[in-house]
Amino acid sequence: MPSRAEIKYYSSLKLKKFRQKYGLFTVEGEKSVRELLEAGIDPEIIFSTEEHAFPGSAIVSESEMRQLSSLDHPPGILAVAQMPDYGPFTPPENGIVLVLDGIRDPGNLGTILRSALWFGFETVWLSSDCAEVTNPKCIQATMGAFTRVRWHSGELEPALRTAALPVFGCLLEGQPLGATSVRSPAFLLVGSESHGIRENLIPLVTHPVTIPRYGAGESLNAGVAAAIAMYHFASVGH
Amino acid sequence: MPSRAEIKYYSSLKLKKFRQKYGLFTVEGEKSVRELLEAGIDPEIIFSTEEHAFPGSAIVSESEMRQLSSLDHPPGILAVAQMPDYGPFTPPENGIVLVLDGIRDPGNLGTILRSALWFGFETVWLSSDCAEVTNPKCIQATMGAFTRVRWHSGELEPALRTAALPVFGCLLEGQPLGATSVRSPAFLLVGSESHGIRENLIPLVTHPVTIPRYGAGESLNAGVAAAIAMYHFASVGH
Repeated sequence: MPSRAEIKYYSSLKLKKFRQKYGLFTVEGEKSVRELLEAGIDPEIIFSTEEHAFPGSAIVSESEMRQLSSLDHPPGILAVAQMPDYGPFTPPENGIVLVLDGIRDPGNLGTILRSALWFGFETVWLSSDCAEVTNPKCIQATMGAFTRVRWHSGELEPALRTAALPVFGCLLEGQPLGATSVRSPAFLLVGSESHGIRENLIPLVTHPVTIPRYGAGESLNAGVAAAIAMYHFASVGH
Repeated sequence: MPSRAEIKYYSSLKLKKFRQKYGLFTVEGEKSVRELLEAGIDPEIIFSTEEHAFPGSAIVSESEMRQLSSLDHPPGILAVAQMPDYGPFTPPENGIVLVLDGIRDPGNLGTILRSALWFGFETVWLSSDCAEVTNPKCIQATMGAFTRVRWHSGELEPALRTAALPVFGCLLEGQPLGATSVRSPAFLLVGSESHGIRENLIPLVTHPVTIPRYGAGESLNAGVAAAIAMYHFASVGH
């Protein structure tokens, strides 16, 4: 049985500060933990309650699980794993890389990674101020996709400038998405909900594209916009 | 200044039980409250803090606002309005009606309404076990769309049966969405994340459609799937 000090140590991973300090993150729920194992990631430790006893796990009480869990309704199984490090970003030699500028909501970010996996976008590149992929709410929203999509984080402007590849940018004005043909290698750039693509990146967008508004409203959810753009590029490119 | 009893009364609207009992719901944030007013909906009362003083509102303290608000970070303006009643559902004479089967996450539901407004789907029809549109998290996620999309709630099976219109259903197996042509009037049926379209409704789907998977993963987020389907039908139909 884990000691009180261990429970305290691992429950600190609910906070970004400690995830970064220890280089560890948590994954909750049987499905996600199994994804982790199937992806060949060896957790440092797995906790489960008696009710959800998981092979090879340390059994904890319900109240200890509540302490460890970041979720309102702890699913009873929680793994702790080392943060993956996919190294620095390098521009693609083929294919389209999804680039996210300032997606701060971890749920939205997780949904985007899940869509990226579905549409075959294997690499996602995040501006430094995006939510962390290893935020528990993001991990949860990926539904396991976090083990199968590679992500890199960094400053977008210098790297986009150096890469000198086509940049398709989702904007409110641009070529209608449905009429846009694919070039590859290229970037697909999606901005944040509140501010869209940042001003310093707009001049780097070589192909402004837009999801036509057939009704009313001011904007789409960023996760929805990213998914529709990936849907289009995946259908046209395949 | 509102009395303690009034604060207590209106803060009860955070719970579904009391929203239904009093037929009232709350809308938070300047943008959403303005949408409400612009839509010609006359709130029963508007509360705001001194910092966010809103014309014609009752001024409350920060702590009273926290009591009234359903949000972790109360935006300081909160309106209370009567629940709209769009009456019973009647099958469309033209256009496509979005039908949602068991979308239980209020944030997802709100995002779907927001996408519906953007793509010109003016009517949304919800199974009785969907989240409530007037749940504060849903209202928030619609970004104002709740005033401009009409919604009806009820049992889907008998009504779909009676209507005898084409039913496009988003399933894991079906005609690829991109190859699907539109018929109107019709229904576009989207199921829940966890269970998809319920078994009793499957036989009523006349046109199974699927969003092709170009990569991997088990499914898409229901809000994402609904948005991509609406994007397709809106682009093909216009």
